[in-house]
Amino acid sequence: MIIDQTIIDSHNSDSEKSHQDQLAYISDELGKKGIDLEGILDQISKFQITIPSWALGSGGTRFGKFPIGGEPGNLNEKLDDIGLLHKITGACDSISLHLPWDIPEDTSAAKEKATELGISFDSVNSNTFQDKDGQEHSYKFGSLSHTDSKVRDQAIRHNVEVIELGASLDADAITIWLADGSTFPGQQNFAGAFERTLKSLEQIYKTLPDNWKMFLEHKPFEPNFYSTVVNDWGSSLLLANKLGEKALCLVDLGHHLPNMNIEQVVSRLIMEGKLAGFHFNDSKYADDDLTVGSIKPYQLFLIFIELVEGIKDNSWSWMIDASHNVKDPLEDLIQSLEAIRNAFAQALLIDRNKLSGAQNSNDPVVAQEILQDAFKTDVRPLLREARLRSNAAIDPIAVYRELDIRNNLVKERGTQTIATGL
Amino acid sequence: MIIDQTIIDSHNSDSEKSHQDQLAYISDELGKKGIDLEGILDQISKFQITIPSWALGSGGTRFGKFPIGGEPGNLNEKLDDIGLLHKITGACDSISLHLPWDIPEDTSAAKEKATELGISFDSVNSNTFQDKDGQEHSYKFGSLSHTDSKVRDQAIRHNVEVIELGASLDADAITIWLADGSTFPGQQNFAGAFERTLKSLEQIYKTLPDNWKMFLEHKPFEPNFYSTVVNDWGSSLLLANKLGEKALCLVDLGHHLPNMNIEQVVSRLIMEGKLAGFHFNDSKYADDDLTVGSIKPYQLFLIFIELVEGIKDNSWSWMIDASHNVKDPLEDLIQSLEAIRNAFAQALLIDRNKLSGAQNSNDPVVAQEILQDAFKTDVRPLLREARLRSNAAIDPIAVYRELDIRNNLVKERGTQTIATGL
Amino acid sequence: MIIDQTIIDSHNSDSEKSHQDQLAYISDELGKKGIDLEGILDQISKFQITIPSWALGSGGTRFGKFPIGGEPGNLNEKLDDIGLLHKITGACDSISLHLPWDIPEDTSAAKEKATELGISFDSVNSNTFQDKDGQEHSYKFGSLSHTDSKVRDQAIRHNVEVIELGASLDADAITIWLADGSTFPGQQNFAGAFERTLKSLEQIYKTLPDNWKMFLEHKPFEPNFYSTVVNDWGSSLLLANKLGEKALCLVDLGHHLPNMNIEQVVSRLIMEGKLAGFHFNDSKYADDDLTVGSIKPYQLFLIFIELVEGIKDNSWSWMIDASHNVKDPLEDLIQSLEAIRNAFAQALLIDRNKLSGAQNSNDPVVAQEILQDAFKTDVRPLLREARLRSNAAIDPIAVYRELDIRNNLVKERGTQTIATGL
Amino acid sequence: MIIDQTIIDSHNSDSEKSHQDQLAYISDELGKKGIDLEGILDQISKFQITIPSWALGSGGTRFGKFPIGGEPGNLNEKLDDIGLLHKITGACDSISLHLPWDIPEDTSAAKEKATELGISFDSVNSNTFQDKDGQEHSYKFGSLSHTDSKVRDQAIRHNVEVIELGASLDADAITIWLADGSTFPGQQNFAGAFERTLKSLEQIYKTLPDNWKMFLEHKPFEPNFYSTVVNDWGSSLLLANKLGEKALCLVDLGHHLPNMNIEQVVSRLIMEGKLAGFHFNDSKYADDDLTVGSIKPYQLFLIFIELVEGIKDNSWSWMIDASHNVKDPLEDLIQSLEAIRNAFAQALLIDRNKLSGAQNSNDPVVAQEILQDAFKTDVRPLLREARLRSNAAIDPIAVYRELDIRNNLVKERGTQTIATGL
Repeated sequence: MIIDQTIIDSHNSDSEKSHQDQLAYISDELGKKGIDLEGILDQISKFQITIPSWALGSGGTRFGKFPIGGEPGNLNEKLDDIGLLHKITGACDSISLHLPWDIPEDTSAAKEKATELGISFDSVNSNTFQDKDGQEHSYKFGSLSHTDSKVRDQAIRHNVEVIELGASLDADAITIWLADGSTFPGQQNFAGAFERTLKSLEQIYKTLPDNWKMFLEHKPFEPNFYSTVVNDWGSSLLLANKLGEKALCLVDLGHHLPNMNIEQVVSRLIMEGKLAGFHFNDSKYADDDLTVGSIKPYQLFLIFIELVEGIKDNSWSWMIDASHNVKDPLEDLIQSLEAIRNAFAQALLIDRNKLSGAQNSNDPVVAQEILQDAFKTDVRPLLREARLRSNAAIDPIAVYRELDIRNNLVKERGTQTIATGL
Repeated sequence: MIIDQTIIDSHNSDSEKSHQDQLAYISDELGKKGIDLEGILDQISKFQITIPSWALGSGGTRFGKFPIGGEPGNLNEKLDDIGLLHKITGACDSISLHLPWDIPEDTSAAKEKATELGISFDSVNSNTFQDKDGQEHSYKFGSLSHTDSKVRDQAIRHNVEVIELGASLDADAITIWLADGSTFPGQQNFAGAFERTLKSLEQIYKTLPDNWKMFLEHKPFEPNFYSTVVNDWGSSLLLANKLGEKALCLVDLGHHLPNMNIEQVVSRLIMEGKLAGFHFNDSKYADDDLTVGSIKPYQLFLIFIELVEGIKDNSWSWMIDASHNVKDPLEDLIQSLEAIRNAFAQALLIDRNKLSGAQNSNDPVVAQEILQDAFKTDVRPLLREARLRSNAAIDPIAVYRELDIRNNLVKERGTQTIATGL
Repeated sequence: MIIDQTIIDSHNSDSEKSHQDQLAYISDELGKKGIDLEGILDQISKFQITIPSWALGSGGTRFGKFPIGGEPGNLNEKLDDIGLLHKITGACDSISLHLPWDIPEDTSAAKEKATELGISFDSVNSNTFQDKDGQEHSYKFGSLSHTDSKVRDQAIRHNVEVIELGASLDADAITIWLADGSTFPGQQNFAGAFERTLKSLEQIYKTLPDNWKMFLEHKPFEPNFYSTVVNDWGSSLLLANKLGEKALCLVDLGHHLPNMNIEQVVSRLIMEGKLAGFHFNDSKYADDDLTVGSIKPYQLFLIFIELVEGIKDNSWSWMIDASHNVKDPLEDLIQSLEAIRNAFAQALLIDRNKLSGAQNSNDPVVAQEILQDAFKTDVRPLLREARLRSNAAIDPIAVYRELDIRNNLVKERGTQTIATGL
Repeated sequence: MIIDQTIIDSHNSDSEKSHQDQLAYISDELGKKGIDLEGILDQISKFQITIPSWALGSGGTRFGKFPIGGEPGNLNEKLDDIGLLHKITGACDSISLHLPWDIPEDTSAAKEKATELGISFDSVNSNTFQDKDGQEHSYKFGSLSHTDSKVRDQAIRHNVEVIELGASLDADAITIWLADGSTFPGQQNFAGAFERTLKSLEQIYKTLPDNWKMFLEHKPFEPNFYSTVVNDWGSSLLLANKLGEKALCLVDLGHHLPNMNIEQVVSRLIMEGKLAGFHFNDSKYADDDLTVGSIKPYQLFLIFIELVEGIKDNSWSWMIDASHNVKDPLEDLIQSLEAIRNAFAQALLIDRNKLSGAQNSNDPVVAQEILQDAFKTDVRPLLREARLRSNAAIDPIAVYRELDIRNNLVKERGTQTIATGL
């Protein structure tokens, strides 16, 4: 489904007056604080977030799934959906593929189509947490950490193939989320599993093209329920350090134990030069994979304070990794994109000198005032303006609903297609 | 697969000498403390645990499932598996069905078969957390709590049918685990959802046969990730009290927030006369559904201390509710059965007068000594003796492996059958 | 220390122009949505929060305390501090006393002084979690739940005396936070402790004056580390229901297990007509007693959505219960007062009909948009206007610092006074 | 208070017959499994645990403390108490001092007295989490991480003095638990605080005598409630690696977020050659500092499985760090000593080859059987025999009570002495 620019323009013109008033107000308010509106707008516009190919359909739990209909059944349709999202949000110019779910039938055609839609291929993801039909060795008891070298070799080969495919699509990073671990005490030797994983990763690492990175993603539990090999940032950093400078640590916001100070984890990884980027989502209990900013928006803002501080020359990978169990996946993604840019914009408002001053003089009252002043500022006019300037929609959800996109997708694709993914 | 008694007898005779020595030792040790071995053995033997029909196949997570092969493909085969388990453990004389997964083709035949295997039908379970093929209304946004009365009515009818079917099998309780809730703040009005649920439950309650009970099961999250309608024991008790004396509260050990003192919840429900019974399992992080006693055996023991104190005339429902992601389901159940009886036996060893004495004189040191003395006592000879007297196996896992049961089941049923369930 | 109105007025006039611009903007924006500014302002102004007498000095942990100096050494000075806070914030017109820390030497004089400062006496608090010098029986092993009736009687008498003193000050509620519980498994019989507590509370309840309420406060742990008698809202509600209609349940935001959905607890208590009110604070890990809104401002907002929905004729008790380990206690309280009113104002912005519409049509996307639209709205101009109209300061922290209040208090009272409290 | 050997001998002779029967039984049972009783007994006897000087009095919380009486008021009395403990348990031949609480008046005399009691001086602890009277700079906002170099220098000097004092007592390690961190978002720059801490530690590290070690102890919160500088094993390992080979990571069992897999942390630190040792205790909620093994004995056992695997040539530091809020401190320590040795003994029973076999063949059922067989074995006769051979008491709690030691200490020292400590 292609959305014509005139439709978006028409939508925008309806709310433009109101928008300009709001923008003028915040411009004025920020001006009083010496904040340059244009600089902020520029940074927001350039802030592009990758959409994972597996997050375009309905998600579910082990208890079941409730498909919404109109889900993309192949890579082409996935590109279409992201193209559509990018058209109305101006915020997501790349896709992250999950192999083998997304192997293109024709690589050149896929690249061409993506280019037309203004989309590039970001990091590629391997999958050794499921068995595919006809697979020789099972990953039931692990992949890169498996006690049997034949299983490890199979998993290594798969990762190498993913890199090769990614390279053919001009991607430049592989994200490895390893479900490996154990479900019961005694099942696995912790040190042995770590060592085998390291050896396997070294094999994969060696095949990385020069300009490539390897992103390691940690997670404390699920699908294993007692231990995982890459359980926390400490283990992830150990592996990344042992592997070399191309290996970096990816942070998924839902992959932490209760009460974790995630913003400090981010700071540590930046400090060590080992932050790869993010899988953004939100959670109340565990790896809930909820819409970004829907549960703990202040935590998200605190994370962005670290990112803005450390960003300098860094080019980190920004991606959403959410599951859409009850929302329309595309609407959910629009809300996540908005939440991420909202937190980013608010973090940009902070006067770093003032904050440092409060920190150096141990004045937590003023430090909190500075943070909350930014957080309480209604930056939505900035996000709308950034979209307007990118020819995207002032209110993407409204456009999405006005155009009745989901029903059109259902008509196109049927109610029964189920997107590959979780 | 039927196991001949002579095989078990032969297995038992091999280890009988060693067993009798161990039994004599513990009999002697307990005797010194004035504990009557025969009384304990009798209670252990009578302690029978229900096996859920859905826990006989491999479980999984949203990330996938690794079937083990030889899983029971229909109710008959499920009865066979439980018959086999009961034969070698003497500890599980009933099955709990999940509808619609387990609708028998022929009720009389099912009852007859069960009787032959020494198995009765315990509580039946309704399922409104999944949509079945051809179902008129979806449960995506709830069932008994749904905002649309048509969906609620459909869910009520389903529950009533489950009761009817259960009654035809001489079951006498329905367990309602309600996945209803919300995944995002604002999605659901808490009070409205609670009220609608209560009204729906009242409709179902009215249809309960005289001798029936209704068990309500609480759970804080999953598959909903922001709120659930029956989230904790407080909400469960509120509903049970409003419904009437046939409504009771079921405790699943994995359905609690981190650090919860579950044994105190059990005490509260007993105190209020509202404990229904248990779904036993174990967990490290969330609703992990691990083998009973595999993670926190001391907590299990503490729960049994409450149960032994409150048990008197009560007849509670004891059931396992575990998921077998990496273990052979039948071996996993054998380990769970053993863990439950182990905790029960240890709790029986406690001298209640002594414990009350320590409690009344505020002597936590002695109270701990009393508890740990029981917990550190190796009661396995008692469990073995109880099995021996029930013509079951001294070492059920050993028999299971000697007879190569899994491979025989695979030969019988193939590698591809997947048991209905989660 | 008394702040002259002219000082506040002068401060306000400096920022009035800027304030009026901001107010005009939000007034306009709200007007577009059909929201009546004056109605909101009126509700904000009337929203008064009680200050606990024990939160005016530096707090600490078992590892130590770092007093800030100038802390109020007696009830008079505590009244002065709250008077000062009320003067500059217009948001806290009452004090909650903790006995025996705050027994006035002269009740009439205390009342007179309070009246002069525009302060009334809100709920009074008993203390049976510490031993006072010369106390006959120790509370080491509990008070109202103690196994020894002499200890229980002493604790009952103390509570009765607290009520009597409170009545003499025209307070109309007693808050009972019971530290009773156990630190080790086996130490306490759960049911016995609950029953004894109930019996003790009944004795106290009987002495309540007609217009009085009894507030029960639950907490899962600390200072007891295994169980507490009033551990969660379920236990609190059980007690309140057994006691009678004067008994209600108080919610302290830090008294919950990790990940608890506190807003749902609030809804349950409102639904049952048993919500007493709040001890506001914030926490990241446990009962951290941090500044309200400093960690999870969105959760606070969600709680206020429940409150605004249920508020009708209810008159709930709003109180701060924070500990000031690193901030100036008065500045900390100013920030808490602001955070509470901020969340209240945002919750008032929600269009209840729209929200119900989204809920009834199971539209979590729109429900979230409605909530976040309110939450992202910068309502600070409303809070400032409410203060301005109450002759309080537009920016209380700024006034506090301009007037160098802490240093003046230190000069008045010295560096060594330590306020009674925790 | 000195206990005469004849008293212990007499106590032992009363239960010797019963003990020998039990020992014979377990000896026989272990023999069947090919386990050498004498080897195990030898390892148990040599397993000596350090007692911290600050754990000999009653502990408390910020809500108060209930002293038991007879607490040791100075270093001499602390040595006496540990001497007494060692006499009846044979399990604790060293003390860990906390400076400045335990500065000896006369170093030689202290060493002499310790030698007489069979006690040596283990690691010494610095204290920069409290302000001492007359201290020039406050640690309210940190010590080694403070933004002000004068505060850091003061804290560095204190640590150096602690090392000097420790060296004079033949100790060979300093344990640094750093309370530094922040209580509110924004208060502290994470990276800045880490860097300053590292720089400060480097200054201290440089002064370490050749044979000394520096132990770093991590903790996620309390007394700071938002972030800590050394928050988890990852941060601790980062610091230790940057400092050098003398720097190691100490694990306190209560210093982890909910649900943490601590045994895996232990494995990681052993794998990296950076485990210093332990502060043993137990907890249900947070840093509860409960008696070792009183809440999660199976977790303790799993930790010991890692330790026994990794122990080889390592000499780790074993220490208890508990707080005694409701138990007699000395009885509490006796129970902790027993729990530690119990877990150690059970871990020694595991057949490592069998376990590796189960792990290599991915057999979690058998792995669990192996672990639980050891855990269910009643090893208390081994612990009693180890004590008997050390001329200690078969049943230390019984001896302690028979001799009415607490009351004698109260008579000697009064009810009002309060031990320095927490």
